[in-house]
Amino acid sequence: MARWQPDAPGRLAAAALDLFEENGYENTTVIEIAERAGLTKSTFFRYFPDKREVLFGRGTVTGLLLEGIASAPPAAGPLDTVGNALDALGRTFFTADRREFSSRRQAVLSANAELREREALKRIDLTASMIEALTRRGTPDLTARVAAQLGALAWEIAFDQWIDADNSEDFGPLARQALIEVRTAGTLR
Amino acid sequence: MARWQPDAPGRLAAAALDLFEENGYENTTVIEIAERAGLTKSTFFRYFPDKREVLFGRGTVTGLLLEGIASAPPAAGPLDTVGNALDALGRTFFTADRREFSSRRQAVLSANAELREREALKRIDLTASMIEALTRRGTPDLTARVAAQLGALAWEIAFDQWIDADNSEDFGPLARQALIEVRTAGTLR
Repeated sequence: MARWQPDAPGRLAAAALDLFEENGYENTTVIEIAERAGLTKSTFFRYFPDKREVLFGRGTVTGLLLEGIASAPPAAGPLDTVGNALDALGRTFFTADRREFSSRRQAVLSANAELREREALKRIDLTASMIEALTRRGTPDLTARVAAQLGALAWEIAFDQWIDADNSEDFGPLARQALIEVRTAGTLR
Repeated sequence: MARWQPDAPGRLAAAALDLFEENGYENTTVIEIAERAGLTKSTFFRYFPDKREVLFGRGTVTGLLLEGIASAPPAAGPLDTVGNALDALGRTFFTADRREFSSRRQAVLSANAELREREALKRIDLTASMIEALTRRGTPDLTARVAAQLGALAWEIAFDQWIDADNSEDFGPLARQALIEVRTAGTLR
């Protein structure tokens, strides 16, 4: 039996990112990723079903987002609730020490159709999770669907700004500002 | 060389839908679909790269949507422009004679993870096309992104209503009504 490996998924993701940058996603194998991380292939498959998943974590972001929605003040409206969740994500996940990794990861995703597809599906899952969490707070279905879509869009905008080398603001405030802009744009005829 | 076959893609889609309903998506082969349609395997591959694509047409809906956006009155706001495009789609594509096929197709998609994934990606492509078409009309980027997301949501809502056996309204009016509801929901705090 393999010993427990501290932060094996994080080390695998970091190794994969290095290799994808160096040799391209298509030319990198799971064995190479495991070796670079100083781990075995079977450890890789304990955490990820295949190569495509290695940069997509295992639900951490979804969990934080759902907690953020559930813990918003009861009186908060649906968009403020989503803003609360994005704030929480900025405090605990999209932190300054993660910015460089996130930026490099995004460049790798953008360069590969299969990874872009995986990312798009992840966004859809996240939106569905937000809708469910909002509905659980009593938000009517249609409102929850609109708030989740606008929230996902604000997230995308804030994330692009946050990983920009010229940016020095934190993710949370960028997301709050993006939500305001998105809401304003949505009131147009 | 095979002769030209009238509406080969339509016949292949109809045959595929029958077989997916009868035997399941996983248990149906491209050869079976072609045979049921009275066509050859090579004709199938002239129109579709693989089995997963056979229920997804070849850009017809996207083309109609983009035409609808481009042909909206110049003074129309972004959401009215999207409404114009959904109306056009209702007049030319989601017509009464297509309702039963659309409803059966949706049931097959919902029952299969691979097809649901394909559908989700198609929605993302459609949203990207709407953003591009709106931007070409001079809609600012952020506004175009919001309008396209709200438009996609209104489409989804209207489509679900339209394929419902109890519904007797046309797709266009349902989409217009859904757009109004979606916009209202988006103004919440």
